[in-house]
Amino acid sequence: MVTRLSNFFLRTLREDPADAEVTSHKLLVRAGYIRRAAPGIFTWLPLGLKVKAKIEAIIRDEMANAGAFEVHFPALLPRDPYEQSGRWTSYGDGIFRLQDRRGADYLLAPTHEEMFTLLVKDLYSSYKDLPLTIYQIQDKYRDEARPRAGLLRGREFTMKDAYSFDYTDEGQDASYQAQRDAYERIYQRLGLEYVIVAADNGLMGGARSEEFLHPTSVGEDTFVRSAGGYAANVEAFTTVVPEALPFDGLGAPVIFDSPDTPTIQTLVDHSNAHLDAPAPGIAGPATDGAGEWTAAHTLKNVVLALTHLDGTRELVIVGIPGDRDVDDKRAEVAFAPAAVEAATAEDFAANPLLVKGYIGPWSETGAILGEESATGIRYLLDPRVVDGTAWVTGANIDQKHVHTLVAGRDFAGDGFVEVANVRPGDPAPDGSGPVELARGMEIGHVFQLGRFFAETLGLKVLDENGKLVTVTMGSYGIGVTRILANLAELNNDDKGLVWPAAVAPFDVHVVAAGRDAAAFEVAAQLSADLEAAGLDVLYDDRPKVSPGVKFGDAELVGVPKIVIVGRGAADGQVELWDRRSGDREVVPVGEVVARLRG
Amino acid sequence: MVTRLSNFFLRTLREDPADAEVTSHKLLVRAGYIRRAAPGIFTWLPLGLKVKAKIEAIIRDEMANAGAFEVHFPALLPRDPYEQSGRWTSYGDGIFRLQDRRGADYLLAPTHEEMFTLLVKDLYSSYKDLPLTIYQIQDKYRDEARPRAGLLRGREFTMKDAYSFDYTDEGQDASYQAQRDAYERIYQRLGLEYVIVAADNGLMGGARSEEFLHPTSVGEDTFVRSAGGYAANVEAFTTVVPEALPFDGLGAPVIFDSPDTPTIQTLVDHSNAHLDAPAPGIAGPATDGAGEWTAAHTLKNVVLALTHLDGTRELVIVGIPGDRDVDDKRAEVAFAPAAVEAATAEDFAANPLLVKGYIGPWSETGAILGEESATGIRYLLDPRVVDGTAWVTGANIDQKHVHTLVAGRDFAGDGFVEVANVRPGDPAPDGSGPVELARGMEIGHVFQLGRFFAETLGLKVLDENGKLVTVTMGSYGIGVTRILANLAELNNDDKGLVWPAAVAPFDVHVVAAGRDAAAFEVAAQLSADLEAAGLDVLYDDRPKVSPGVKFGDAELVGVPKIVIVGRGAADGQVELWDRRSGDREVVPVGEVVARLRG
Repeated sequence: MVTRLSNFFLRTLREDPADAEVTSHKLLVRAGYIRRAAPGIFTWLPLGLKVKAKIEAIIRDEMANAGAFEVHFPALLPRDPYEQSGRWTSYGDGIFRLQDRRGADYLLAPTHEEMFTLLVKDLYSSYKDLPLTIYQIQDKYRDEARPRAGLLRGREFTMKDAYSFDYTDEGQDASYQAQRDAYERIYQRLGLEYVIVAADNGLMGGARSEEFLHPTSVGEDTFVRSAGGYAANVEAFTTVVPEALPFDGLGAPVIFDSPDTPTIQTLVDHSNAHLDAPAPGIAGPATDGAGEWTAAHTLKNVVLALTHLDGTRELVIVGIPGDRDVDDKRAEVAFAPAAVEAATAEDFAANPLLVKGYIGPWSETGAILGEESATGIRYLLDPRVVDGTAWVTGANIDQKHVHTLVAGRDFAGDGFVEVANVRPGDPAPDGSGPVELARGMEIGHVFQLGRFFAETLGLKVLDENGKLVTVTMGSYGIGVTRILANLAELNNDDKGLVWPAAVAPFDVHVVAAGRDAAAFEVAAQLSADLEAAGLDVLYDDRPKVSPGVKFGDAELVGVPKIVIVGRGAADGQVELWDRRSGDREVVPVGEVVARLRG
Repeated sequence: MVTRLSNFFLRTLREDPADAEVTSHKLLVRAGYIRRAAPGIFTWLPLGLKVKAKIEAIIRDEMANAGAFEVHFPALLPRDPYEQSGRWTSYGDGIFRLQDRRGADYLLAPTHEEMFTLLVKDLYSSYKDLPLTIYQIQDKYRDEARPRAGLLRGREFTMKDAYSFDYTDEGQDASYQAQRDAYERIYQRLGLEYVIVAADNGLMGGARSEEFLHPTSVGEDTFVRSAGGYAANVEAFTTVVPEALPFDGLGAPVIFDSPDTPTIQTLVDHSNAHLDAPAPGIAGPATDGAGEWTAAHTLKNVVLALTHLDGTRELVIVGIPGDRDVDDKRAEVAFAPAAVEAATAEDFAANPLLVKGYIGPWSETGAILGEESATGIRYLLDPRVVDGTAWVTGANIDQKHVHTLVAGRDFAGDGFVEVANVRPGDPAPDGSGPVELARGMEIGHVFQLGRFFAETLGLKVLDENGKLVTVTMGSYGIGVTRILANLAELNNDDKGLVWPAAVAPFDVHVVAAGRDAAAFEVAAQLSADLEAAGLDVLYDDRPKVSPGVKFGDAELVGVPKIVIVGRGAADGQVELWDRRSGDREVVPVGEVVARLRG
């Protein structure tokens, strides 16, 4: 097909859109691929739609290769299935809700686990029907609090979501692997670098959960990886627990005056000024024997407020080494499905035993936190706070701290919790060495849901023995519009977009750059010849537009192969221009088709 | 591609779904094409999605042939553009409205005129950019009061909607014709019979409006057509106005007692019992000189109540020949944008001059309706009530009527109105003879919108003289899901669906019908050979399913070509089964590919 730019629906823009924060958003708008319709909601212009269709075609192809069948669920769905699963409520403000003219409740679906489960329940009843993997490519809705970053985080967006159904765990593992392999092929075909990281497997009870992250500085996710091959997102990272230490040789806890030391840094400074230097090896786990008190010697006790699904509020205190902070995402996962926030002034007022800035698990008169707690508040410790570690921490008296407070001797928690941030150099849990931190954008998630939805919604089948068994499910998602944005983030330069051939809106961009009729005649004929060779051609035939403007548009639009038909056309010479490398090469017009058909 | 039924996501059903009223709905559910998710909202199963994709591909192909470019607008849209056009309000209960987390108003778009207009305004500014036709294939939402008939009237449905943009009326005519031609090609390729009927052009100020109707007894629309080629929907039909008659020889109006004659039939019976026979040719327009009073001699005066857009209520009386009724759809169009309903008891109570059952335009003391009306109520006449026609009608006195009341002499209306129903035998307005009435289903609408939206939303371009001119638009819509349902309505028998090859979910359905391994081996090899020949094959390889069940499923699913590989397989013989004709023919297996590749 030849598309002539003189009548094509395209208008490139010189200026970046005012609301665009990231490169992909700026370029996709400027180059005429998308247009904003509302915050986080976009109109697809012909160029954008063509790229999106190519991405979808690759996904469909690999889904078919993986034996998955395509279905399509409505976007507008009744409340009932989501009420049954509990998600009508637990989604909170994150979904769009509405009522029809009879007052019945509906939502715009953010995901379709319930519908997939109910569909299979509706139609299937025997183990013979399984395994089954079905998927859709469909527009989803989330009422994001801060829609931004263009297509990277929209409120209406396209996803491919697949679900597998098995009646044995072994079957589930095979279905999971088939989708995981398909995802790898999809990203490889798209030329999209990816890292597979272990992810938190959430509340659903499934076993495996992995995210495909595209490493990029604009990514919203932090992940960790070791040189030895470990990779996980920070929520899934698990701390290597040090060995317990002997209590031998440890003195008794010593309360000391520590005026105006409500923060770790002020406490460390005070300790170095007023205390004897720490004995090598006896204090906190990060002691280096350098004779200085450091944040790693201190135990920070952070008061968090959980809001449980039933609406009840619970205070919980986490004790972590003072050289670490509570990581919000890790805390969110650790306490899910409860919501987590910092304790408020009212919370402190209601618990007078908590002396803000000077909280610790122990006091001269007994346990404040942990076993035999005087406060009744749960106290959860970082896994590094093993028996025998000695800490500087609050003494539960204003302006006083305690040192040589020994875990397992002087205090104990009610359990352990993974909420401390991960730092470069922390050991990977699989023993593959220290980790580094990197930024990534989630481009896919494969996930063993297990039996949560099947149990909740009653999806059972008869097994070989005629016994009803609950089905186990997997969930496999790719953000189509997000991938498109990722490809734009990855493939551009200061002139514009540079699409990989697999998803470029056209195969070739022919530019009639001469001012005489000959150039236009040659360009038109060449375009027709390229079309006859099976290529999809964008032909810039605009009669009164300067070559400079045409070249600028070609660079902005980003078709990977450009042919310039200019002054040399009369002599049968044209230029092949590789958009990515910038190389230009004069070739006889008769050779162009063979060169580009590749 | 070969799809094996043993693992394909398909479950056929024996029973019609309880809520299905029409054949297409029953069969599409039973044969596993769609599944209900909520009233008027459906999930697409693999078979249905394949047929839908084929219809969409044909539409895309013909849109490209017509020079239209594909875009895609969001379904979730902000209120503002619809507020500007007035449709946020005028849609009434017919749309889904919602709010986001910040309380901003949104709707699920039922159509996108505003968005198309604003997009072109956003990007284009010169006559050189035009003509332009852009389209989308997109899911739309309408909150139907009574979603029913399956896909024929859903609440979430897929449409192709195109809009053309021109700056001259001549350009608009050409754009219109290009879409009209494309629609004809689309229906021809789909094998879908259509009638193009003149349609009401509504309030938008455009000139041409035509509907594509598929003639079917389950159609919701009535249309009229003449043997001479006239076709229109009833709303667009215009009455042939008879010539005025002379007043000569007509007596004065005569009031007569007509006890208990509040209906036309009682009035006619009374007149035949108590009045002299009507003089031939002098009474109502339909007199046949047979000497009997008929309903055609009477003038029926119907009180309607209009509700205008600003909320005000107005009574209006229409005078139509007594042998006709007010057609609701024609009245709706005649009075649009006001809403029309019958007058209520309160309306009569508020207007004591209106004597229910005995209303007429004239009384002994002067005009009750029309010119010099005593009631102040608008009086609109059927176009057949021309000067010189004499009528039996109400005398505005309880139990009394008047005869020989002559239009143009004794009374006149405030104007004419096309609200009387169309009857078989009525003359076509183009002189092509009497019309007949038929039922049809709207499958497409091409429509000159004119400048309404461009004016309202400020879409202007600079013309050749540098003058700003308002753009003129055309609107072109096809219901994709409705067409699929129409094809199912049209292509079935008592065994199931019978798809046309152009949209069938598979090209060939191979059935392994033997009980021995040979049949399965031959069928598998044949399926592979058919795939290699480029055909999309559904292979029923289910090992323990009887041939009878397999044949029943094949008939229900409706792939047009079926190959039965049964007992003869060992001898190299299979049966070709034409689903539509029912013909079965034994052929050597080696000839099947050549026969089916066609």
